[in-house]
Amino acid sequence: MTPAKLPTGKTCEIILQPIGRRISVPPGVTLLEAARLAGVELVAICGGEGICGTCRVRLLEGPVTAPTLTEQAELSSADLAAGIRLACQAEALGDVRVDIPPESFSAPQRLQVEGQPMALELDPVVIPIDIQAAPPSLDDLASDLSRLRRSLPVPQARFDPGLLPDLSGTLRAAGWRARLAMRGDEVVAILPASTRLLGLAVDIGTTKLAAYLVDLESGTLLASGGAMNPQIAYGEDVISRIQYANAHAGGAAALQSRLVETLNDLAGNLCREAQADPQQVVEAVLAGNTAMHHLFAGLPVKQLGESPYVAAVSEALELRAAGLGLRLSPGAKVHLPPNVAGYVGADHVAMLLGSGLLEVQETTIALDIGTNTEISLFHDGRHWACSCASGPAFEGAHIGDGMRAAPGAVERVRIDGNAVRVQTIGGQPAVGICGSGILDAVAELVKAGLLDRRGALKGGHPRLIPDSKNAAFVLVEAGASGSGRPVRVTRQDVNEIQLAKGAIRAGLEILLLEAGIEAPDIRKFIVAGAFGTYLDLDSAVAIGMFPDLPRPRFRQVGNAAGSGARLLLLSSRLRREAAELAGKVKYVELAKRPEFMRVYVRALGL
Amino acid sequence: MTPAKLPTGKTCEIILQPIGRRISVPPGVTLLEAARLAGVELVAICGGEGICGTCRVRLLEGPVTAPTLTEQAELSSADLAAGIRLACQAEALGDVRVDIPPESFSAPQRLQVEGQPMALELDPVVIPIDIQAAPPSLDDLASDLSRLRRSLPVPQARFDPGLLPDLSGTLRAAGWRARLAMRGDEVVAILPASTRLLGLAVDIGTTKLAAYLVDLESGTLLASGGAMNPQIAYGEDVISRIQYANAHAGGAAALQSRLVETLNDLAGNLCREAQADPQQVVEAVLAGNTAMHHLFAGLPVKQLGESPYVAAVSEALELRAAGLGLRLSPGAKVHLPPNVAGYVGADHVAMLLGSGLLEVQETTIALDIGTNTEISLFHDGRHWACSCASGPAFEGAHIGDGMRAAPGAVERVRIDGNAVRVQTIGGQPAVGICGSGILDAVAELVKAGLLDRRGALKGGHPRLIPDSKNAAFVLVEAGASGSGRPVRVTRQDVNEIQLAKGAIRAGLEILLLEAGIEAPDIRKFIVAGAFGTYLDLDSAVAIGMFPDLPRPRFRQVGNAAGSGARLLLLSSRLRREAAELAGKVKYVELAKRPEFMRVYVRALGL
Repeated sequence: MTPAKLPTGKTCEIILQPIGRRISVPPGVTLLEAARLAGVELVAICGGEGICGTCRVRLLEGPVTAPTLTEQAELSSADLAAGIRLACQAEALGDVRVDIPPESFSAPQRLQVEGQPMALELDPVVIPIDIQAAPPSLDDLASDLSRLRRSLPVPQARFDPGLLPDLSGTLRAAGWRARLAMRGDEVVAILPASTRLLGLAVDIGTTKLAAYLVDLESGTLLASGGAMNPQIAYGEDVISRIQYANAHAGGAAALQSRLVETLNDLAGNLCREAQADPQQVVEAVLAGNTAMHHLFAGLPVKQLGESPYVAAVSEALELRAAGLGLRLSPGAKVHLPPNVAGYVGADHVAMLLGSGLLEVQETTIALDIGTNTEISLFHDGRHWACSCASGPAFEGAHIGDGMRAAPGAVERVRIDGNAVRVQTIGGQPAVGICGSGILDAVAELVKAGLLDRRGALKGGHPRLIPDSKNAAFVLVEAGASGSGRPVRVTRQDVNEIQLAKGAIRAGLEILLLEAGIEAPDIRKFIVAGAFGTYLDLDSAVAIGMFPDLPRPRFRQVGNAAGSGARLLLLSSRLRREAAELAGKVKYVELAKRPEFMRVYVRALGL
Repeated sequence: MTPAKLPTGKTCEIILQPIGRRISVPPGVTLLEAARLAGVELVAICGGEGICGTCRVRLLEGPVTAPTLTEQAELSSADLAAGIRLACQAEALGDVRVDIPPESFSAPQRLQVEGQPMALELDPVVIPIDIQAAPPSLDDLASDLSRLRRSLPVPQARFDPGLLPDLSGTLRAAGWRARLAMRGDEVVAILPASTRLLGLAVDIGTTKLAAYLVDLESGTLLASGGAMNPQIAYGEDVISRIQYANAHAGGAAALQSRLVETLNDLAGNLCREAQADPQQVVEAVLAGNTAMHHLFAGLPVKQLGESPYVAAVSEALELRAAGLGLRLSPGAKVHLPPNVAGYVGADHVAMLLGSGLLEVQETTIALDIGTNTEISLFHDGRHWACSCASGPAFEGAHIGDGMRAAPGAVERVRIDGNAVRVQTIGGQPAVGICGSGILDAVAELVKAGLLDRRGALKGGHPRLIPDSKNAAFVLVEAGASGSGRPVRVTRQDVNEIQLAKGAIRAGLEILLLEAGIEAPDIRKFIVAGAFGTYLDLDSAVAIGMFPDLPRPRFRQVGNAAGSGARLLLLSSRLRREAAELAGKVKYVELAKRPEFMRVYVRALGL
C-alpha cells in the first residue's frame, strides 16, 4: 500500500501509545503502515496480510475503518468490543490514538530500573517466626486460632482477616508446623515451614513502573523489572488522568484496576524469575507522585486538579494489599510513603531516602525531572521543596520528531562544524529523538552559535532549513534514518525545551531565594530519575537548566525513588524518618511568590 | 389440571422451602398445585393460567418438565439459568425441592424477633464527634486528612481506609462541618453534621434471621424485622450446609453472599422504616451459631464437620462490614461475639447476655432449643455448657405433616375425651403442625393414655387409625383442614419427638452430673428462642423434656440472642464481659462422657 494513491489535502495525526511516538499520515493509511513510517516496529509475522493476528492494537480514540471480515474472523467479539483491532487492517480516517500492547512490540522498551546500591542496617518491618502447634483432639477442643496463639511468642498478636479463610486448611496441610510472618504485633502470613519471606518495592511513575523483589531477611535483590504504566492509555500526564477520573463514571476505578493488573503481572514475572510464589510476598512499598498514589489507593483526585491543588491524604498509609486487588500473600500490607504536597509526592520522599538524604550536612539540591519536576533544597538544617510544571518535552512529547527512550531514539548529538553525529538507543537507525537527545541537540545548537537567546535558528549551516515560522535543523537525513524521513529539531521544539528548562531553573532559583543563598553555594547537586541519569550534564548547564557548578558536585543517581522504596521494605527506622522528613519539609508554592514570573522569564533564555 | 389423568403407581415428594413443608403428589402435578395440596398459598394472580408471572419459584433440585413457551416469554434467560420457574407451569417428574421467594408467598411467615427488654448503662462502642475544619487555601496547603486531624480532639486517630475515597468530596459538600463516628481511636464514619449514628444487631439463626436497628446514642430500638435464612436453599441444617460448602467449589462463597444479600435487604428495610440511610449504620453485631458465624465471616468450616469438630476461630472478631459485602457505612465494623466451641456458638453467648446471665448467683439452667440445643448450667460460681443434637423435629422437619411456624400451622392441641381441639397460627384452616403443636400433641396423647412409654399409639380413641407399622392420630379431619387432607400425628412422628427431647434432657442431666447436683437444685430455668417461647411448659414437662420444677422457676425469654446482640451494640463493658464469660465456661463434650448413652436411653421414654 502506498500513501500516494490516497486522497490528499488532509492529514491524520496518529499517536502511538505507550511510547508516545506521533506521525502524520494521509487518511486511509493502515495503522501498521503508520507505525512503520514512524519507525515503530510491530510484530506482524505475516507481513500485514491479515492472516497471523499478531499485530493487535487497541484503538483509544479517533475514526478508523470498520472491522474487516478478516478482523471479524481473527478477533473475538469481546476483543472487538474492547477496541482491539489488527493494525494491518484498520485504516486511519482522522486523528487517531492507539495503544500498542507489549506483545505487539517487536523491540522492547528501555525501562531503567536500577538505582544506586546503599548500605543499610536491616530493621525489617516483617519478620519470620516458626511455630509448631498442637492438633485438636476430644481432650483439647480449642479453636484452631487459639491453638495457634498458644504456640506464639506473642499470644495476644492480631491476625489479618485475610488469613482466616485458609487458617484451618493450611495448619492441617502443614502438620501444624508453619512459618508466620509477623508485622509488629500482627500476623500477616501463615506459610509452610522454611518459606522465604519476600517484599515487593515499586516506583509508580506516570510513564513507567519499576519493580523490585527483595528477600526480607537478607535484603538481597532477587529480581527486578519494568513495565509501562498502563494508565497512559487514559492520558499521558497526571492532569489528563485526573480529568479522565473526574469526567467518567468508574473512571478512577478503571485507572486503578488497569494499574493493579499490570502490577500483578509484574510481581508474577519477578516471582517466576526468583522461583518464588506471589503468596510469599508479605509486604509491599509503592512510591508514586501524589496523583499516582491517590489513583492507586482509591483516594479522591478531583481536588488535586483544582486550585489550591491539595492532596486528600499526605501521611503514610498502610493498606491491605488484597483490598486493593494485589494478588500477594492474602494478609500482605502495602506501605505508601508520605506525600509532601499535591505536586511533591511520595516518590520524591522515596528519592530523597534512596539518595541518602536523611541527614544532610552540606547545602544540597535534589531533583527528579519529569512532567512535573520536584526539587528539594537542604541548607543549614532546613529543607524546602517545590514542584515545577516542566511539561513532557523531555519524555519526547510535544516535540515534532519526539519519542520516548525506545530503540531508534536519538539520545546523543554532537555538532562539529558541518559534521552532525548522533547516537541512537540500541545503535539502530534513527526514528525520532528522546529527551537526552533533544537536550543535547539544543545545547549543541547553542554552542555552535546556531540559536539566538530567544530560541530562533540562525546562521548558515547546511543542515538548517530556513522557514519564517518554523525553521528546522536536520539531525538525521532521510536517507540515513530508519523511517525514510528526516529526524529534525524545529524552532517549536527548541521553544518547548526552553519552557521546560525555564520552569526547572526558576523553581531552583526560588528555592535559593527562600534560603537566602546563591547557586555557587550548592555543594551537592543530585539528579535522579531515568532522564536525569541519561542526560549530558554539560548540555544541561549549556542551556541554563542547571547552574554552572564544578562538575564533581553533580551526582546522577538513577532510579533513586525505586531504591528508596526498597529501603523502606527493610527498615522500620527509615519509615519513621521518612514521616519526619515529610512533616518537616517546607513546601514552597511557586505561584505565590511575587518574583516567580520575573525569575521564570529570565530562565527561559538560552 | 387433575392429578388423576397422570401415570400412577409412583409418587414425587415435593419439599417447599424455606417453610419446610413436604407433600407427596403423583408425577405431572404442577408445583403450584402441589403447594396448594400442601396448604401453602402462593401468589398466583391469574389463577394459574401462566399469564401473570407472579408464582415464581426457584428449582433447587429434582426433575421437572422443561420450561414452557409461556415461561420462556415471562422469564429472562438469566432467570431460567438460575432455576427460576413459574410454579403453575413446571410439573414435577420426581422428588423435587423448590425455594419459594418471599414475594411469592401470599401469607407472611411468623418470625419472632422480640426479646425481653433490659436495663443497661450505656457505654457505646461508637460515639459521635462534631467537627469544623478549615478549608484549604494557597496559604494552607495541608492535605484534607491533615486538616481533618487538626479539628479532632484526638489528632492521632486512625481512619478506616473505607472513608478515604469519599473524604475530600464529603468535606467539601458539607462545608467542612461534619459528624465523625469514633470507635476507640479510629474514625469509622464521616457524615453530614447532626446525622444520627445507628447500629444494627442481627441474630443469624440457621432458619431465621432477626434484625434490630438501634440509635447508638439513646439505645432506642428504631425498627426490627425478620427474614428466613436464605441458606436454607442449600441445606436445612448446619451439617448439610457445611457439606455443601465442602463439596462445591465456591460453595462457601455462595452461602456467604446469599446471606449477605438478605442482610442488606433487611438492613435497608429497617432503615426505610426508621427514615434513615444505611450509611448511618456505623456498627453491627451479628450473633449466630459457630457454623453460621464461620460461613458469614468467610472462615473455614470443613473442620467443623469432622471430629473433633473444632471452630477455626472462637475469640470475638471485629471485621470491616464492607469487606464482608455489607452495605452499611463504608467504615462500619462488624463485631462477632466469641464462640465457646464448635457447637456452642456466639448466639449462645449472646443469649446468656440477653438473659442477664453475667453475674449468676442462683443455680441456673439456660437453653436455646433448635436443631442443636445449647445448654448452660451456672452453679456455685462455675459455668458449664454443652450442645445436644436435638434435630429439626421441633422446626417441623422429619414430621409427616410438619411445617414451620407459618399461618395454618397447628400450634396448640388439647385432647379432652373424644374432643380434639387445635389452635392454628393466624386462626387459619390447619395445613400442618409446627413445633409447639407436635409437642402439645405428644404430651396430650401421653396424658390421655394413648401412648405407651416407647411411643406406640394404643387404646380405642375414635381419632386413632391403627396400623402395625405407623399408626396415626388425626388432629384435624380432612373436611376441616385447609388442604382437604387430614393433619395427623404418627408413631414415627412421636419417635422423632422422643429423639429430640431425649437428647435435650440427656444433655441437661450430664451437666447436672458434672456439677454434682440434681434437677430440684435448679432455681431458675431459662428457655430462650422462638420455639422455647411458644412451647407449653406443662407439655414439655409431661413428655420429660424438662424436669418437673415449680413453674415459677421457668422463664421463657423470647429471642434473647437478639437482645444480647443489641446490648453488645451499646456497651463496650459487655463486650469485655462476654469475652471473659466465653473464656471461662467449661465446655462438656457429651460424646466423651461414658454415662451419656445410659442417660440418653433413659431420657427417651415417655
